[in-house]
Amino acid sequence: MSWKNTFYEKLMKTYNKKLNVDGVSGERMATRLAALSEIGLTTDNGSNRPGYSKEEKQAKDLVARWMTEAGLEVHHDEAGNVFGRLAGKNNHLPAVLSGSHVDSVPNGGHFDGPLGVLAALEVAQAWKDTGYQPEKPYEVVIFSDEEGARFNGGFNGSEGMMGFGSLEEKKKLVDSEGKSFSKVLEEVGLTAEKYPEAKRAESTIDMFVEVHIEQGKRLEKENLSCGVVTGIAGPCWLEVTFSGEAGHAGNTPMNDRKDALVAASAFITNIATLPAQVSDSAVATVGKLHVEPNGVNVIPGEVTLYVDIRDIHKETRDKLIDLVKQSGEQIASDYHTSIVFNETMRVSPVPIEEKKQNLLEEAILAHDLPAYRLPSGAGHDAMIVGEKIPVAMLFTKSINGVSHHPAEWSELTDCVQTVHVLKTFIEKLQQQGA
Amino acid sequence: MSWKNTFYEKLMKTYNKKLNVDGVSGERMATRLAALSEIGLTTDNGSNRPGYSKEEKQAKDLVARWMTEAGLEVHHDEAGNVFGRLAGKNNHLPAVLSGSHVDSVPNGGHFDGPLGVLAALEVAQAWKDTGYQPEKPYEVVIFSDEEGARFNGGFNGSEGMMGFGSLEEKKKLVDSEGKSFSKVLEEVGLTAEKYPEAKRAESTIDMFVEVHIEQGKRLEKENLSCGVVTGIAGPCWLEVTFSGEAGHAGNTPMNDRKDALVAASAFITNIATLPAQVSDSAVATVGKLHVEPNGVNVIPGEVTLYVDIRDIHKETRDKLIDLVKQSGEQIASDYHTSIVFNETMRVSPVPIEEKKQNLLEEAILAHDLPAYRLPSGAGHDAMIVGEKIPVAMLFTKSINGVSHHPAEWSELTDCVQTVHVLKTFIEKLQQQGA
Repeated sequence: MSWKNTFYEKLMKTYNKKLNVDGVSGERMATRLAALSEIGLTTDNGSNRPGYSKEEKQAKDLVARWMTEAGLEVHHDEAGNVFGRLAGKNNHLPAVLSGSHVDSVPNGGHFDGPLGVLAALEVAQAWKDTGYQPEKPYEVVIFSDEEGARFNGGFNGSEGMMGFGSLEEKKKLVDSEGKSFSKVLEEVGLTAEKYPEAKRAESTIDMFVEVHIEQGKRLEKENLSCGVVTGIAGPCWLEVTFSGEAGHAGNTPMNDRKDALVAASAFITNIATLPAQVSDSAVATVGKLHVEPNGVNVIPGEVTLYVDIRDIHKETRDKLIDLVKQSGEQIASDYHTSIVFNETMRVSPVPIEEKKQNLLEEAILAHDLPAYRLPSGAGHDAMIVGEKIPVAMLFTKSINGVSHHPAEWSELTDCVQTVHVLKTFIEKLQQQGA
Repeated sequence: MSWKNTFYEKLMKTYNKKLNVDGVSGERMATRLAALSEIGLTTDNGSNRPGYSKEEKQAKDLVARWMTEAGLEVHHDEAGNVFGRLAGKNNHLPAVLSGSHVDSVPNGGHFDGPLGVLAALEVAQAWKDTGYQPEKPYEVVIFSDEEGARFNGGFNGSEGMMGFGSLEEKKKLVDSEGKSFSKVLEEVGLTAEKYPEAKRAESTIDMFVEVHIEQGKRLEKENLSCGVVTGIAGPCWLEVTFSGEAGHAGNTPMNDRKDALVAASAFITNIATLPAQVSDSAVATVGKLHVEPNGVNVIPGEVTLYVDIRDIHKETRDKLIDLVKQSGEQIASDYHTSIVFNETMRVSPVPIEEKKQNLLEEAILAHDLPAYRLPSGAGHDAMIVGEKIPVAMLFTKSINGVSHHPAEWSELTDCVQTVHVLKTFIEKLQQQGA
């Protein structure tokens, strides 16, 4: 059986077909999740679709075709974001936006991103099949390059739409193969010089609601399909370079070394102990590391690593950043190396309006489900959009909390249940603030 | 000024001409070092003469012409090694061999290898100019392909002479361009099928003495031209894989992680403390490391790293290997990860006979220089030859310990001083064991 069929069958195996109501189809969701999972499929059956890669573009193009089938008018912006618009009865009103992204981390899963895009699309498709037209225009959106696997700093799509970050800064970005932001965009038919034109007038957007897998274990522990997100932890990314002295591994005595990797290792081990000093929800991770020159018999002269630091409260998150920096300075000094910090991202935690949380809760209760609220430890496009425009988020249960990994999974029943809640939420929105 | 002249002038600038005695000529050494440096010269003014390349052959041919000029009888063997023989007064006796190699790492320096060959040649040349004939036959040798830049594993010249490694194994070698051992040899006029014929009867060799740059900073710190090598450290390479669990950097609480990089880092930090537990000369280095999946916001699921472990004594080297493995097992367990070791190389250290060390020391003292002994952390042709035949090594001072780099340098005064010691050593050898 092909991978696509295997994936589809696995999704359908436990699916509760009673959810195939009000125009929503579990089979269609499963077919589309499976079709996307084929693009950039890795040997581990994971997903590899870096931002602005040809695989991400292929995924966007496929979803754009489905948008057209669902009766949406497709528009591509200069940051590579894709919008599928359904006219509202009052089409001059600001639009309700819903969606997520289709890029992935290297060897990631098949739900982080695609679920939010396909959930938003399924709402439009269900409306088409049931002959419903909303008051306000509705747009399904695919944001480019959310994960940041490409340039070590994500959100280039949603930032483009919001007009954040100057072109000058973006043009300094270089990917792991040494390709510039301009070159990378060019390869997928975009032009860096035009990137600022992606900025959209805030007055054209009523709000943005994003469905996303939880990527944690809270909903699973509560045995719930979905939950209301209370706020989004703002990540800070530090690029840290330890510089020592390269040398021959055989001819340099241990006590005469300035080994950048030994220093970096002491730092990484210590970082893991720091979050507990500031809060229960704080986390710090070194996920990426590069050794120079990286030869078996050469003492490492330079190590570059990236620290990802998060908390949902700004005060504790910022305190943790300071602790990490202090630890690095001390260890660099202890190991006779030098250290340089380069902060590549510091996003403020984004609170979600109580009013929006309450409306999501109403939508959940309307489906006879228990309402449950939880924070988001991960950053999402809603975090970027939420800096200036009201946002809401719905989390769908993750199995075993696994994410950014081929084993990432959510049951189709939970996904489709979330679609119903999203649909009801957006329908309820039509009566608000019009 | 041409490169050759620049190089020559730089060598001569600090040269102590008082060393031009007993037939030895600093100008000749400088001329020859400069002439060799032109072959395979890189844009960084480094040397690029891979083993069995046309550049290595060109260098060998040039030295062979100088051998003839010095009155030596030139012989090429089937492994591409070149021997220049001076008959002894008792020409039936086993020969004393001295030399090194003329291949280089990519973009390497101009002393690693050539110095040992030219020092051995200068001794023969000095004897010719002063009318000295040794009791035992003397052979200047150029070994092929010492560095291993070609096939990721060097010593194909000295191993050929010693009869190590089956033809079957050698024929499995493939270079970085995908060329087979057979094809590579063919390109420089050799035949893989005849490679085994390079094996030379051990009874024809009295001993092998190699001059080489130190590639470390010990002699520089002691302000000495040369030093007696006590033994050649045998490297052991361990490929180590830590497996944990990848996960989202934002949504996985710190106390619910199996972070392979945190475990690997604790291991690396600890490795740096272990050599001191076994000896002063032991070293252990992690030079190469790879994180999987290596995304900024992904908890590392797997880390593969390489440990290079060396000592000049087998007992302490093997004890250090055990300590490294024990440390890895303990740390993997402490950090809830698993660990796998794969030993990719274990070469026995080659001790150097006390008698030979003492004779080298006598030769140094005879020149009113302080005697100093130091280990060789790097492998050399003497390590291969030393498995079956007595060897000795003299190190020449390196500037700043730099090697395998265009900036590699040794002062001509130190090089010529080493030639004098080598010459005296070989002359003293004539009275021994004949």
